[in-house]
Amino acid sequence: MKTLVVNSGSSSLKCSLFGNEHELIAKASVDAIGTADARLNATLGTRVSSRVLAGADHAAAFDAVCDDIAGAADIDCVGHRVVHGGEKFCEATLIDDDTERAIEDLVPLAPLHNPLCLIGIRAARKRFPKARHVAVFDTAFHQTLPDAAFTYALPYHYYTEFGVRRYGFHGSSHRSVSARAIERLGRVASSSRIITCHLGAGCSTAAVRDGRSIDTSMGMTPLEGLVMATRSGDIDPGIVGLLARTQGMSAQAVEDVMLNESGLLGLSGISGDIRELLEKAGAGSERAELALSVFAHRVRKYIGAHLVTLGGADAIVLTGGAGENSPALRSRILEGLEGLGIELDATANADCVGSEGTITTATSRVAVYVIASNEELAIAKEARAHVDPS
Amino acid sequence: MKTLVVNSGSSSLKCSLFGNEHELIAKASVDAIGTADARLNATLGTRVSSRVLAGADHAAAFDAVCDDIAGAADIDCVGHRVVHGGEKFCEATLIDDDTERAIEDLVPLAPLHNPLCLIGIRAARKRFPKARHVAVFDTAFHQTLPDAAFTYALPYHYYTEFGVRRYGFHGSSHRSVSARAIERLGRVASSSRIITCHLGAGCSTAAVRDGRSIDTSMGMTPLEGLVMATRSGDIDPGIVGLLARTQGMSAQAVEDVMLNESGLLGLSGISGDIRELLEKAGAGSERAELALSVFAHRVRKYIGAHLVTLGGADAIVLTGGAGENSPALRSRILEGLEGLGIELDATANADCVGSEGTITTATSRVAVYVIASNEELAIAKEARAHVDPS
Repeated sequence: MKTLVVNSGSSSLKCSLFGNEHELIAKASVDAIGTADARLNATLGTRVSSRVLAGADHAAAFDAVCDDIAGAADIDCVGHRVVHGGEKFCEATLIDDDTERAIEDLVPLAPLHNPLCLIGIRAARKRFPKARHVAVFDTAFHQTLPDAAFTYALPYHYYTEFGVRRYGFHGSSHRSVSARAIERLGRVASSSRIITCHLGAGCSTAAVRDGRSIDTSMGMTPLEGLVMATRSGDIDPGIVGLLARTQGMSAQAVEDVMLNESGLLGLSGISGDIRELLEKAGAGSERAELALSVFAHRVRKYIGAHLVTLGGADAIVLTGGAGENSPALRSRILEGLEGLGIELDATANADCVGSEGTITTATSRVAVYVIASNEELAIAKEARAHVDPS
Repeated sequence: MKTLVVNSGSSSLKCSLFGNEHELIAKASVDAIGTADARLNATLGTRVSSRVLAGADHAAAFDAVCDDIAGAADIDCVGHRVVHGGEKFCEATLIDDDTERAIEDLVPLAPLHNPLCLIGIRAARKRFPKARHVAVFDTAFHQTLPDAAFTYALPYHYYTEFGVRRYGFHGSSHRSVSARAIERLGRVASSSRIITCHLGAGCSTAAVRDGRSIDTSMGMTPLEGLVMATRSGDIDPGIVGLLARTQGMSAQAVEDVMLNESGLLGLSGISGDIRELLEKAGAGSERAELALSVFAHRVRKYIGAHLVTLGGADAIVLTGGAGENSPALRSRILEGLEGLGIELDATANADCVGSEGTITTATSRVAVYVIASNEELAIAKEARAHVDPS
């Protein structure tokens, strides 16, 4: 009995196949979907394959992926990553026609993402009609936020009528790494205060008290909060009006810039990739240095905000590509915080690359952990737990 | 030798007259300028007067104020509050024709405010041609922010070409109350870490290290950061695009809502006044309670952010109308932070209304001070110090 995980992005599709013990059997991804450059890369055991899928749409890409990695597999559970579950979904949910309709109803909240999730869901239900399909929502873990944290100070009917509130994203990642941190602390979940920092191409933080998310940096959309590869994160909302007045830009044009031309890329003019920026900064690039310092400053601000929201923390978790693999970035984020009980261990930090570990000293009041975030595995586990509660 | 302070708001004008020792001699304000309801209220010693100024513009209002409070006074120094000094002005500056032109050049950054400041400056230079006029900028104190704190993660040319960066406001208030906190601590300025919270109709925080502002919650405009009476403060910038798409609102329309219909007023649907909301919440209003809890949560987030930016704090200052007069609001902001070394003294907090005081216990690692912010007095002192350095 195997679990397939389907993760549909705006121009990509990632699928992973897990066995009975959640061991990874195969994985495949298609990038640049809909273009002549679309290509399917698959890994099945030790066999690696790659083929062109020129012009394939998301549905065709999904079928091609299944042909390559799931042809003869006995798949009884499919976990679908769904970006936006609104206020309707606070946990993983079995997909039937009603669930599909509810996800469709949420399209206005996630116009770029939910339609693609639906394509994946429909293609998968057609291909695996006897499997149980489970929607695992990026927003669900944050549905425990109190109203003080999720309500924007806008006219209240924007919330009640248009659904304008903080939802938060990266839920499977924040949920799984905070649970792992609680294990490492040797605590029960019901007495723990964890700050999780997911630092990948998209970046977000969460304040997790007693196993439940009580605040997070992403908001109504995945644009708010930290600096990301190409996303601005927080800006003065007055800037949108200012650019409209002085540069004649529409709200949509400003949003496109904030999503696709900003963040580390916009600041540096070089790249949205942390590793490349660390190299360039080391070689003397001032703009790469600026991008990294703005990035680190923003993460520090959110760590502080969550520290006060939690009234103190037992542990801080760094995860995501940059969190897991970049000691230099981690020290920029956590340096100079001894006065707040965070004592980085330089050697442990330098040694911890691509593996789980503690990077603070034994006397540090707050432990800092590096924990890998395996989003597909987390989704497989959530989906399986939902259909076969043990 | 007397100092006149001129503070021009969007529909109001406030003037104060100070003597040799900065004692207040007289003050006057005109509200609802340009309407039939415009009225001049003046206090000169024990004499209080009030008269209608129907239809008067800012220049006429200024002349009327001078007739009432400054007619025979020997004014040799006029301090003008100027909202936006951009990157050009990092301290109080003597006003000549070049300064006037430079303030005019900054109008695009503060289209609502700088033009009114200029009207006040021109009227005052005409009325008091022999006095020295000094521009005291709301932004100047924050010109010491490092680039990591003032740079938004937008395309870098937005900064170099359009001046898009964090400027920060309420500078005279943050400067004067942080200086007073350093005195209370018995420290030298060069070894101090202070967080200042200015909580009035407009609200902002600042992180002040060694007497210099290194971060602040307001940004390019006075809209970013804390929840205010009618201003939203921080929102997900993606909300502007969402409202444009789904509700057909222009960037300008969204900005108007964020400035004038949001904040405490928008959340509560009742009032933008903290005292009224505390009363209503006490009487069971859920929406008043929500407004207060969102307000307090946001202040807490910024205190945390600044705590990490400073690597710890010696003192936190609360100032502005709500900061100085509302023990109930202060305890919402500072409760549950014993783990971070902030121990509120409930009795001292309750007793400190409209006076300066310490509201933490003797053992609190971080002292919390309530310090009155007298913006006009701070401007008078800055202006006088500039023309007569002693």
